[in-house]
Amino acid sequence: MQNVLINGQWREANSSGSFFASNPNNREKLTEEYPVSTWEDCDEALNAAAEAFVEMRLMDREKIAIFLDTFAAQIEERADELVDMAFTETGLPKSPRLGDVELPRTTGQLRQAAAAAKSGSWALPTIDTQLNIRSVFAGLGPVVVFGPNNFPFAFNSVAGGDFAAAIASGNPVIGKANSSHPGTTRILAEQALKAAELTGMPKAIVQLLYRTGHADGEKLVSDPRVGATGYTGSRGAGLKLKSAADAAGKPIYLELSSVNPVIMLPGALTERGSELVDEYAGSCLMGTGQFCTNPGVVFIPSGTAGDAFTTGVKEKFDATPAGTLLSEATEKSLSESVSFLENNGATKVTTVAEADSGKFCCPNALLVTTAENFINQPEAMQTEAFGNAALFVTYENDGQLIDAVNALEGNLTGCIYSDSGSSDDASYQKVAPHLAQKVGRMLNDKMPTGVAVSAAMNHGGPYPATGHPGHSAVGIPGTLRRFAMLQCYDNVREERLPSLLRDQSPSSETWRLIDGAWTCESVKLTV
Amino acid sequence: MQNVLINGQWREANSSGSFFASNPNNREKLTEEYPVSTWEDCDEALNAAAEAFVEMRLMDREKIAIFLDTFAAQIEERADELVDMAFTETGLPKSPRLGDVELPRTTGQLRQAAAAAKSGSWALPTIDTQLNIRSVFAGLGPVVVFGPNNFPFAFNSVAGGDFAAAIASGNPVIGKANSSHPGTTRILAEQALKAAELTGMPKAIVQLLYRTGHADGEKLVSDPRVGATGYTGSRGAGLKLKSAADAAGKPIYLELSSVNPVIMLPGALTERGSELVDEYAGSCLMGTGQFCTNPGVVFIPSGTAGDAFTTGVKEKFDATPAGTLLSEATEKSLSESVSFLENNGATKVTTVAEADSGKFCCPNALLVTTAENFINQPEAMQTEAFGNAALFVTYENDGQLIDAVNALEGNLTGCIYSDSGSSDDASYQKVAPHLAQKVGRMLNDKMPTGVAVSAAMNHGGPYPATGHPGHSAVGIPGTLRRFAMLQCYDNVREERLPSLLRDQSPSSETWRLIDGAWTCESVKLTV
Repeated sequence: MQNVLINGQWREANSSGSFFASNPNNREKLTEEYPVSTWEDCDEALNAAAEAFVEMRLMDREKIAIFLDTFAAQIEERADELVDMAFTETGLPKSPRLGDVELPRTTGQLRQAAAAAKSGSWALPTIDTQLNIRSVFAGLGPVVVFGPNNFPFAFNSVAGGDFAAAIASGNPVIGKANSSHPGTTRILAEQALKAAELTGMPKAIVQLLYRTGHADGEKLVSDPRVGATGYTGSRGAGLKLKSAADAAGKPIYLELSSVNPVIMLPGALTERGSELVDEYAGSCLMGTGQFCTNPGVVFIPSGTAGDAFTTGVKEKFDATPAGTLLSEATEKSLSESVSFLENNGATKVTTVAEADSGKFCCPNALLVTTAENFINQPEAMQTEAFGNAALFVTYENDGQLIDAVNALEGNLTGCIYSDSGSSDDASYQKVAPHLAQKVGRMLNDKMPTGVAVSAAMNHGGPYPATGHPGHSAVGIPGTLRRFAMLQCYDNVREERLPSLLRDQSPSSETWRLIDGAWTCESVKLTV
Repeated sequence: MQNVLINGQWREANSSGSFFASNPNNREKLTEEYPVSTWEDCDEALNAAAEAFVEMRLMDREKIAIFLDTFAAQIEERADELVDMAFTETGLPKSPRLGDVELPRTTGQLRQAAAAAKSGSWALPTIDTQLNIRSVFAGLGPVVVFGPNNFPFAFNSVAGGDFAAAIASGNPVIGKANSSHPGTTRILAEQALKAAELTGMPKAIVQLLYRTGHADGEKLVSDPRVGATGYTGSRGAGLKLKSAADAAGKPIYLELSSVNPVIMLPGALTERGSELVDEYAGSCLMGTGQFCTNPGVVFIPSGTAGDAFTTGVKEKFDATPAGTLLSEATEKSLSESVSFLENNGATKVTTVAEADSGKFCCPNALLVTTAENFINQPEAMQTEAFGNAALFVTYENDGQLIDAVNALEGNLTGCIYSDSGSSDDASYQKVAPHLAQKVGRMLNDKMPTGVAVSAAMNHGGPYPATGHPGHSAVGIPGTLRRFAMLQCYDNVREERLPSLLRDQSPSSETWRLIDGAWTCESVKLTV
């Protein structure tokens, strides 16, 4: 049985059971056994994290930055081993993906977070010189991170985006591994601990539990010692955690399901329909469709161009070998979702019915329905079919399209394709404001599957895509403010202020809002 | 029976009952009868607000600013009438307070909100020119505002801080009047509607209900048509609304109870104890102690200087005539809270036992207890005694003080008084980090009752002082972001972007984060 990482020690878990991961490419159970921790482990981790936080809240920003940079380098030292392990546990390709895309993205995020921690601009230091009131965002306490199954590195609970943001804003992390890739998570935690040791960090800056019972998970996110929680995963489990955290007044940031609507306006299909077939099918089947931003629902105008597009995508889907799914649970859930949609009036138009039985896999599935059916049962029609499946919804006119858009739940993304001239402009103007209200990120003529790590990115959106429409899970420095509290200092003596709020500029890269203007300069003292 | 304001019409309510306000200065029921609305009124208001929002989300920022400025002027036109009505309904003094402090503060807030709406800087427009990804905060839908009893103007549901922030960020408001000052709220709503008419705003930009049943209130804040809710008031009612809103994934911002701990370090009392008696008693009894930031719990060092301070405050409390309380409910709750504290080991040291029975009133009450008792039953000892009462907690040493601070719930403010030299510095260094984690605003040598309208203000704090430690209810422009969603535009054509995100600078006062640097300039186009 593998050890958990608590307070700097890899030690035997207090376990109530165990589990194994599987190799998606051959459906075989892997040999390593991982513990399901009891509350005792959670309790010890919470105590250690609370103590680590006392140390971290007075720590130099520079020191946190050095830890994050060192961790990135430590990950690179075991890159091959990490890629092998993640490939074995997730079935995701090594290239292009795990080794050359996701791992560099992960270390890049850690380094961006390091730079953000160092500059402190993320904390929006705000100074009112006339009243001598100053405020800044600061760490709020230990952060619990639950990582998803589909990004073993970039959203990993002990190395991914939430981890980087929580640490950079000054909080220790208790990571809860995703059960589908515990070995990958273990290696990352080993490297994080090594980085902590090399940089003189409190031992409990990063801790790892592999799994807990559901009740203990809910207890964990609502514990008084916790500052906040970051969760990426299924809607069902996420909403249970949200409910527990909400009742205790503990912030929780969730990234749940999303069908990521795409609207094809007529002119776009007339102009470049066959090009769009390739673009869409490529995006939808990439990574076997296992992206949070996978374009799962597409609105197609009725008529020749729309029909041709649907036929084109159907043919692509039928001609493309189905990829590997992350787990048996993913396979089961995808298969059930497709059946559920079929049972609610959608028609499967793809004809390949059998998938490779040697791996976790479902045939590529394209379903079609009418906007009328979508509007009549919007909840059923928005069932997320996570994986290599899509639902095309045929609309008759702008009015019906708008009704369908207004029936959408909150989503991470929404795309509108229009012709490169102006023939679709009138429709765009009518539809876009409705779509904008439903999504975190609006795209034009571009598929949503790429989520750039940019300060301007919003990987968020209205409920139930996430738990709050004002926060993003990707995009430093904004993501850091999720794991922070606003601290105001009123008439506090200069030498007692956090360095970000003292008169002297903390660094030439630190932006502060002084008397209403953003500047990297020191406070101008009037005599 | 008074009419409700729905969709631009003052019309008869669908009512399930009625209520009357009272005059706190003579305990008499006032003559105007106000309706308790049924769900029908809520439903109509929601429909009208949803429609108004469709118009507002495409509106020029300038137009919203003009509405807010016009509303401020409209309030000033009926200032005397407003002050008379608020005095009758709340018993708060006309001067200094309602006429010369709170009313100008309220119109000042509206004008600051207008300026913020106009510049758009509050929305943190963020542009990544390399990737052509741009994001900005924008309105999220109709906002329901519940105002408290203690600020009939400045936190009024149709004119106060939450109202100004919600409108300035682009949302219509459904105000729920506080039942203690419905007449004041009615006049404010009349002026708001007039301003809406004068400036061509959608009729439902502001609507007013006087009261609903509890179940309808919970239904209201969780309705799909609602964007978010702002609530200031009692913890019990607030947490019920929070629970309903949370379950529906609707943001809700609450300002609940707070005891606002003050720590007296020994040197401060030795140096200027009698001065501090005046300062403390003045702050604590101001407005009959009916401020969210009233300093209700004070930690006093054991020994001569501490005893002298306690005696001094006791004498002040006994010598000062008790002020008027806002309502019979406030009177009852204060009296019960004081008894509850006494029944849990606190000793009342003030000797005046009778209050003026001709008005809503309780005698000024000073209670004392030990840090040991406080630490042993922290929940009981943190019972908010809203009004002219305080609890002094005697501590023996720094260690015990820290334990007591760690037993504190989240609070809006925390103060530390220390001597003007350095004799208290060692204690300060030990205690302050613990206190900082528990409060939204930390003060030195200053009472917390003043809440300046400053960009650097935090009128917020950890749960249960508020519902989220990252947001403030006072301080433009930050308060606007509470009522906003993050909208990202990825590869969206220039002419389709909101004006805040286009290449050209929206105005010389609009700060935008372009490629990591804050600037008011246009995007620099590279050829």
